[in-house]
Amino acid sequence: MKPGMSLMKHYLQFKDLRAEEYAYLFERTALIKTRFKNYEKYTPLIDRTLAMIFEKASTRTRVSFEAGMYQLGGSVVHLTTGDSQLGRSEPIEDSARVISRMVDIVMIRTYEQDKLRRFAAHSRVPVINGLTNEYHPCQILADLYTYVEHRGPKSALGTTGQALVDSLKGKVVAWVGDGNNMANTWLQAAEILGFTVHVSTPGGYEINPEVAGVSDAGCWKVFADPVEACRGADLVTTDVWTSMGYEAENEARKQAFADWCVDAEMMAVAKPDALFMHCLPAHRGEEVTAEVIDGPQSVVWDEAENRMHVQKALMEYLLLGRIG
Amino acid sequence: MKPGMSLMKHYLQFKDLRAEEYAYLFERTALIKTRFKNYEKYTPLIDRTLAMIFEKASTRTRVSFEAGMYQLGGSVVHLTTGDSQLGRSEPIEDSARVISRMVDIVMIRTYEQDKLRRFAAHSRVPVINGLTNEYHPCQILADLYTYVEHRGPKSALGTTGQALVDSLKGKVVAWVGDGNNMANTWLQAAEILGFTVHVSTPGGYEINPEVAGVSDAGCWKVFADPVEACRGADLVTTDVWTSMGYEAENEARKQAFADWCVDAEMMAVAKPDALFMHCLPAHRGEEVTAEVIDGPQSVVWDEAENRMHVQKALMEYLLLGRIG
Amino acid sequence: MKPGMSLMKHYLQFKDLRAEEYAYLFERTALIKTRFKNYEKYTPLIDRTLAMIFEKASTRTRVSFEAGMYQLGGSVVHLTTGDSQLGRSEPIEDSARVISRMVDIVMIRTYEQDKLRRFAAHSRVPVINGLTNEYHPCQILADLYTYVEHRGPKSALGTTGQALVDSLKGKVVAWVGDGNNMANTWLQAAEILGFTVHVSTPGGYEINPEVAGVSDAGCWKVFADPVEACRGADLVTTDVWTSMGYEAENEARKQAFADWCVDAEMMAVAKPDALFMHCLPAHRGEEVTAEVIDGPQSVVWDEAENRMHVQKALMEYLLLGRIG
Repeated sequence: MKPGMSLMKHYLQFKDLRAEEYAYLFERTALIKTRFKNYEKYTPLIDRTLAMIFEKASTRTRVSFEAGMYQLGGSVVHLTTGDSQLGRSEPIEDSARVISRMVDIVMIRTYEQDKLRRFAAHSRVPVINGLTNEYHPCQILADLYTYVEHRGPKSALGTTGQALVDSLKGKVVAWVGDGNNMANTWLQAAEILGFTVHVSTPGGYEINPEVAGVSDAGCWKVFADPVEACRGADLVTTDVWTSMGYEAENEARKQAFADWCVDAEMMAVAKPDALFMHCLPAHRGEEVTAEVIDGPQSVVWDEAENRMHVQKALMEYLLLGRIG
Repeated sequence: MKPGMSLMKHYLQFKDLRAEEYAYLFERTALIKTRFKNYEKYTPLIDRTLAMIFEKASTRTRVSFEAGMYQLGGSVVHLTTGDSQLGRSEPIEDSARVISRMVDIVMIRTYEQDKLRRFAAHSRVPVINGLTNEYHPCQILADLYTYVEHRGPKSALGTTGQALVDSLKGKVVAWVGDGNNMANTWLQAAEILGFTVHVSTPGGYEINPEVAGVSDAGCWKVFADPVEACRGADLVTTDVWTSMGYEAENEARKQAFADWCVDAEMMAVAKPDALFMHCLPAHRGEEVTAEVIDGPQSVVWDEAENRMHVQKALMEYLLLGRIG
Repeated sequence: MKPGMSLMKHYLQFKDLRAEEYAYLFERTALIKTRFKNYEKYTPLIDRTLAMIFEKASTRTRVSFEAGMYQLGGSVVHLTTGDSQLGRSEPIEDSARVISRMVDIVMIRTYEQDKLRRFAAHSRVPVINGLTNEYHPCQILADLYTYVEHRGPKSALGTTGQALVDSLKGKVVAWVGDGNNMANTWLQAAEILGFTVHVSTPGGYEINPEVAGVSDAGCWKVFADPVEACRGADLVTTDVWTSMGYEAENEARKQAFADWCVDAEMMAVAKPDALFMHCLPAHRGEEVTAEVIDGPQSVVWDEAENRMHVQKALMEYLLLGRIG
């Protein structure tokens, strides 16, 4: 860490940062995205290297982190499990000690949150959760920023971060589908940023509140009927029926999730200006109809692009602290 | 696209650019190559990122694009099929939308041209064909530049691009072997740049003119005997008998292609100053004898290096338009 | 090569460089490491590209070379066997000719030293041994620097390279375990830099002096008992019982090596200020006890980090020659 940073931070789950830190990240994201769009060179991470460790393959996480780091002037080492032997030929703790001697920041996509936690505990540099079985904080950060960009103050740029974050207060997010890492992370975000999640999952796929790790029962409500979960929502969002790592359950899930397809009927009961989001890849005709994801309320391509911009703000913050 | 570029261009097949654009590319290649050789720093793509998507493995395409982009100051994200799931877990159109939000230019090596076309149709940024079953325009661009460098005006540098391109006019290129993506692309180049291709393929491996997509019957001639195809040629060129993706046909091809080995006899009937080219990797004793590929008329190593330089000029053009 | 460099050098085994060149490398390593720790930008290789070719997977070699090159301002193309087809679809000599036209320096991790030698013989640019069955010179370079850093002149920075190298003279290094590439390289280093290696290997796993290639019988001594090898040593070091490529022999090796576990007893007979090193990954309870590797005499994490810094100095030297 550069002199001046008092305390190293990791980003292992959404609640690792506080509301005022999210306000700062939103403000930086607006600035960083604008610079990118205007081809203004901005390279604060010119002498920094990101190691990305993937135990699950990924397009979006890969490209968004890697291109994002390059845009900020930094470099990237991309390790897949075969290369990096995370926990296979040596204890994770040893890998963490070695890798964190050579690079400035680490992003890990793995299965168990515990693996990530152990790596971070022995790392000299900040560690970012690029998706685990339990949480997906970078995606929710992107989703929130995308909401604010579309429905928050007129222009994200030039508005204080606090105003950006405040625009989420009291909103209703409908989560339709699997009680998975995305759902858990939505709950953490709701608790910290003051909105409510309406959750509807098929029986047997409920959110486990202990895993989600939220203390405020007021930040989420459960609905048996997904249409009811969408009623009055500001944002409707879902995920594939079968996330990576659960392919063996594919057939059972197809049957269980048949009624949890976000369609025009669900969007019709949401607020008239409700947005639709999906972290992609999407399976049209399964968790969402083509009509919805390719329709006017869908902001999925902005959402995908914003992964890159929020992660740039996040890496800048974890490496350089508050600027200015 | 930066303000100032009126129209985004892709490079999906050779005929996507016009003769005057090739003149410009040759002129830029000469300049860019000279700067590289002299260690003059030239980094016009400093804030740009190239995504390379490989569905077939490759040394030459990989290294030439990646090192080329670095030499121009840019960055590269290298995606293989396993990472990028092109068309597997999501429609190609969705991948195109997402990836082209995050990077500035995309190179794709895939099987069907149609996959490339669909990606390009939904991409916000220029897309380059890094080899398909149908075409290999970057290789032919390198081959043409290599010919001009060796047999065109005394010094490529300082000569107008038009003069460089004009030095190809009326020349004869002998294509000996498979009627494949290389052969198709030679035909397109001949039509645009005004030379003639003498084609000799074994029966059953002929060029399909509809796939080649040339309208000018005058730009190519078919010869049953490969020696006759080489008679009077300025350039003799061939390719492996079994290209990637056709390995199952290997034995049948070995028998069919036995007489289509470029040897001293073929070179002897070509012009005395004829060049030999091969896009590599080469199988000595199959499509070419060691005597020829390792002999004085062979320019295969320059040809390989020039892949990098022409591709740098191409990326510069697609991203920045005409300079100066 | 840039004008001014009279002769291209490869680094295929430790004895490819002379003692005065190691003195220079140590001096540069001290400087380069200090700059890194102080976040002083130092980018002498800004226009250079390193190709890394891996036929065996690796974390440490991968990250140390790649991050090291980025820290010096350069770029990296990372090729694995699947991508690079080293010697599979084309002769190694052809790969060397092509790749060395496009990049500025090449690092290869492969099996047979002969493969490396053949590549280097046809390369236009410097080639570095990133580990072969026979040698591992970059690791020994890191180990030596780590020793000097901990037990040499008070501050490595500001001391002449000669003084740094001289601090190794007369020292005793105990090698406990397999007579492998690491052991061979230790012998070469001892001969060049004037120290002695006490070697103890199980029967059947002895060093082959012809492979090690040392002429000075005085630079090493063989001990049947590993404890005796450690007596009076300044440095005790070992390696996994089964190196990559020998997995089939795993069970036989476990039995043969059972008494070659570096433990507290061995460290107790070494000098009181002896250091312990291991090139990692380590298998606690096999070749070393947890007590030793995680104990106060162990410098394995510094050793791992120093891989990166010595390799930076090495690449700088091979590409730019002596600076200043």
